[in-house]
Amino acid sequence: MSATRYTYLGPEGTFTEAALRTLPEAATRELVPMVSVAAALDAVRGGEAAAAFVPIENSVEGGVTATLDELASGEPLMIYREVLLPIAFALLVRPGTKLTDIKTVTGHPVAQPQVRKWLRAHLPEAVWESAASNADGARLVQEGRYDAAFAGEFAAVRYGLETLVRDIHDAANAETRFVLVGRPARPAAPTGVDKTSVVVWQQEDHPGTLQALLQEFAARGVNLMLLQSRPTGAGIGNYCFAIDAEGHIADLRMGEALMGLKRSCAKVRFLGSYPRAGAAVEDVTPLHPGMSDADFTAASDWLARCQDGRA
Amino acid sequence: MSATRYTYLGPEGTFTEAALRTLPEAATRELVPMVSVAAALDAVRGGEAAAAFVPIENSVEGGVTATLDELASGEPLMIYREVLLPIAFALLVRPGTKLTDIKTVTGHPVAQPQVRKWLRAHLPEAVWESAASNADGARLVQEGRYDAAFAGEFAAVRYGLETLVRDIHDAANAETRFVLVGRPARPAAPTGVDKTSVVVWQQEDHPGTLQALLQEFAARGVNLMLLQSRPTGAGIGNYCFAIDAEGHIADLRMGEALMGLKRSCAKVRFLGSYPRAGAAVEDVTPLHPGMSDADFTAASDWLARCQDGRA
Amino acid sequence: MSATRYTYLGPEGTFTEAALRTLPEAATRELVPMVSVAAALDAVRGGEAAAAFVPIENSVEGGVTATLDELASGEPLMIYREVLLPIAFALLVRPGTKLTDIKTVTGHPVAQPQVRKWLRAHLPEAVWESAASNADGARLVQEGRYDAAFAGEFAAVRYGLETLVRDIHDAANAETRFVLVGRPARPAAPTGVDKTSVVVWQQEDHPGTLQALLQEFAARGVNLMLLQSRPTGAGIGNYCFAIDAEGHIADLRMGEALMGLKRSCAKVRFLGSYPRAGAAVEDVTPLHPGMSDADFTAASDWLARCQDGRA
Amino acid sequence: MSATRYTYLGPEGTFTEAALRTLPEAATRELVPMVSVAAALDAVRGGEAAAAFVPIENSVEGGVTATLDELASGEPLMIYREVLLPIAFALLVRPGTKLTDIKTVTGHPVAQPQVRKWLRAHLPEAVWESAASNADGARLVQEGRYDAAFAGEFAAVRYGLETLVRDIHDAANAETRFVLVGRPARPAAPTGVDKTSVVVWQQEDHPGTLQALLQEFAARGVNLMLLQSRPTGAGIGNYCFAIDAEGHIADLRMGEALMGLKRSCAKVRFLGSYPRAGAAVEDVTPLHPGMSDADFTAASDWLARCQDGRA
Repeated sequence: MSATRYTYLGPEGTFTEAALRTLPEAATRELVPMVSVAAALDAVRGGEAAAAFVPIENSVEGGVTATLDELASGEPLMIYREVLLPIAFALLVRPGTKLTDIKTVTGHPVAQPQVRKWLRAHLPEAVWESAASNADGARLVQEGRYDAAFAGEFAAVRYGLETLVRDIHDAANAETRFVLVGRPARPAAPTGVDKTSVVVWQQEDHPGTLQALLQEFAARGVNLMLLQSRPTGAGIGNYCFAIDAEGHIADLRMGEALMGLKRSCAKVRFLGSYPRAGAAVEDVTPLHPGMSDADFTAASDWLARCQDGRA
Repeated sequence: MSATRYTYLGPEGTFTEAALRTLPEAATRELVPMVSVAAALDAVRGGEAAAAFVPIENSVEGGVTATLDELASGEPLMIYREVLLPIAFALLVRPGTKLTDIKTVTGHPVAQPQVRKWLRAHLPEAVWESAASNADGARLVQEGRYDAAFAGEFAAVRYGLETLVRDIHDAANAETRFVLVGRPARPAAPTGVDKTSVVVWQQEDHPGTLQALLQEFAARGVNLMLLQSRPTGAGIGNYCFAIDAEGHIADLRMGEALMGLKRSCAKVRFLGSYPRAGAAVEDVTPLHPGMSDADFTAASDWLARCQDGRA
Repeated sequence: MSATRYTYLGPEGTFTEAALRTLPEAATRELVPMVSVAAALDAVRGGEAAAAFVPIENSVEGGVTATLDELASGEPLMIYREVLLPIAFALLVRPGTKLTDIKTVTGHPVAQPQVRKWLRAHLPEAVWESAASNADGARLVQEGRYDAAFAGEFAAVRYGLETLVRDIHDAANAETRFVLVGRPARPAAPTGVDKTSVVVWQQEDHPGTLQALLQEFAARGVNLMLLQSRPTGAGIGNYCFAIDAEGHIADLRMGEALMGLKRSCAKVRFLGSYPRAGAAVEDVTPLHPGMSDADFTAASDWLARCQDGRA
Repeated sequence: MSATRYTYLGPEGTFTEAALRTLPEAATRELVPMVSVAAALDAVRGGEAAAAFVPIENSVEGGVTATLDELASGEPLMIYREVLLPIAFALLVRPGTKLTDIKTVTGHPVAQPQVRKWLRAHLPEAVWESAASNADGARLVQEGRYDAAFAGEFAAVRYGLETLVRDIHDAANAETRFVLVGRPARPAAPTGVDKTSVVVWQQEDHPGTLQALLQEFAARGVNLMLLQSRPTGAGIGNYCFAIDAEGHIADLRMGEALMGLKRSCAKVRFLGSYPRAGAAVEDVTPLHPGMSDADFTAASDWLARCQDGRA
């Protein structure tokens, strides 16, 4: 039964659920909202769910630290899919409410910096109070506790609200990236437009700079898409790094870069290779000379011939 | 009058205030709590305060994004001092409350992951609800809304509470780093145990990898102490980097590294050179050969002689 | 008087003299052939000559080791000019000699590998014996000791010979580079198409790889044109490196690269900045982003503003 | 029969023959002097000899260009052994000659710079003329053409001369390195104290700096022992590089470095992996962390587990 169950960061009616429903297979899964990222992932670790769907990166707030920290620790998990969702808020009100009626507004704390300018311009007097989630804010408006909530427009129906203003976002291009996480298994075959995620911990006893670590990728022409430092818990200044690199673990250049990391770092956790969301073949960084699989294979064949005295 | 006013991230009774009061000059300043990091810093930008004192890095949660983002944008500010404060929570209760009486606990959301294990072990049944700050949690206990609050022990007196348990922290070495921020001015002279903070934005049109950027420091033997990526707001995958490097802008190796950054990056914002908290001369990374000021001066003199035909 | 005297690697009638005569000022100088590179340079060191003209690089044989070693040791000298001369040999014979008459041929030892294929094709039976110089070979033909000499065609008249075959050279593009060397003085101003020569010795006690040394140039976008290792005399495996880099010591990127070398190497000897022979503005490697003098000056100004609190 | 024939750079009685005779197997081989390095190697290429023994590096003169150029071009050959021979000259004279009798001296041209200071001190009036080889010089003394010859003391007997002065060498530690060269075959197994030789040609169309090329070794902690540029014949400034690196092609770090070269260079010619002469285990550069074969194997196993979903 768990094979058909996906957990996600709840509650219902949030952007996370909306993003999850863009996956074709979501239609045939039992989608279970959880109270936290940790709870959603622990259900996978414990075998009660086949996968969990959680936010991992936000164009306004950066990496979602709860998700990064959960993936970096505990029983290993792997990322199988990612989804990019543009984030635009709707201002939801009880039917009949007008803009001039609004004295109090609510929403998730991370929503606030994304609508701050809009509020200053259109509701300069309104008082903001945070809710546990955007959906929870909508519920509190339904219950009459606040006059308006910032949430996804899709939340209106569920809570009997109506959309007073739509498409609110201070920053252009605001979007959130979500990942579908499962227990470790063989990654899907390369699509040609892939991404690989790892977490690396540096050596304490023979440091090697971060720059040397990134050189493992640069030397093989592997492009980095995300570098997020996260504290290891060992005190100020002790960090591990969540890294997204362009390409698939089956690419020979990526494999060599990962082996280089493995040799030079205290620990490397492989978090998966999976298709890049919102990217097509023309978005792939052109290969550096000598870095194709064919180049690696030719060099490997040449080395074997040298070792055999046939070069 | 503003010359004697320091704002800080309020409310009163938090770790931020406790850290601020470790600065000798705090005794002779008017200390004004503000509702947010932005408000504390804007008071400095507007000339209503001489400096603002805010958290910037936490050994459990990582960089304080509100502070990093505020320093990276808006009118330029500079860091003049840093303070490291060990973070240990006290469990504060109304006088007479026993551990077995506690059904509900509160505290700041960032406190929760730092006491989670302790709660599971000692109060597995207690329900957690977040407060706006640790001090606010103490106030809510005073008012009877919750049974116990995690806060700094120094908050007990202010709110008429007593300390039931002290020195609670899941992670050893938990500490928070705070900075004193003012309007740009000449940095204090080097102490020999200094730190330099910058924010850098990479070129879009001729990228240069992050690795190349870090090479500017590595090539001059300058050690990095913090690298924190922050979204620029231009969409997923667009980051700037907050960097703390060991040393002072007056060090010639640091100056050359910063000029290298300036030339290769789209933008560099200098955030100050200031004494490292909690570090002594023996904690300074040994200089690489050829990287002392004397080496730089000798090389510069030699170059001048070559250019003059006297080498 | 010495101010008008130029020594050169003799004897008269060689390619060196021909190259020297391409310099406009040669017409107004007393040109004195010397028996060796060392003798030509020592005359400059001793003040008996204003400059010496010697070969330094050959497209077939590589660096001229005698010249490189002399410039690397002893009293410092500097390069002020370079000349590129295409090397094509003429086969010189006594008047009336036919190709079929030729049983013995002579020439300088370095000429032999440059005409070997031609000899095999056209005079497969002829016996080669080396002469002390191409001009000396011509003299020996004049004296009847050999039947033919490979030399510059310009040597024919001097020795009463005639050119039987001209423009002989196994390798296309064969050319030799010569330099005009004087006592140290301020280098000529940059022309925009310049070259800088140095010799560097690595540290023994904290090695730093050769790769790190070359990185000083690469990091500033300075292109290398020659890297020639020369033994230091301290035993097998101990080398110094003669390096030609594109650009002028007055270029700020070059200055910073040279100071980097000076700091990281045991010893650096500056051999001069001078116009590149046979190159025009369109042959100059395009500047890397951020590496122009204007970029260096802007970065330096910015650093000064930061240090003053005005950034 | 050719299997027992070794050619060497003749004539008999030179340091090359002396070095060759230090190889145990030399006692059971037919040793055939040849007139040139090219002739010695061509006999191997043509199958008339099993191996050729030639000088390749000299602590005073540097790389032996004839050998380097022959190995870099033509039918591929491989190095199987190297021999280091200290070079000290004896001054050989006809019996009865006294130092004050000596008006003319001879020897190989490369001997001259190695005895120049001695000559200036002890025979300042003597005239030097070069001979085709040191042994040839000895023969010319025997024939009465010159008064004294610089040669290996071992040449005295052969030419009926006596040693007037022994152990003459301007530079301390003067030595020459010789190699035993054969047709390509599987290299001997690693001894733990090995060396690997290659020649590399850079790309013309997407250059990559020399520094990037050397980075292939540096990134894998492979130490370079020789870097010698040699002209490619395509004109001034066009060089290939003969490189000796510490270690064996069977070392995994060396294999990866060589594959990196192969991918990034226009051409790589493998010249062999063979025991280092005059070096013991304690002379081997300590391995960098993560660069042992065990580290490479562990990283490779880890990668396979990641690709299988078992990491």
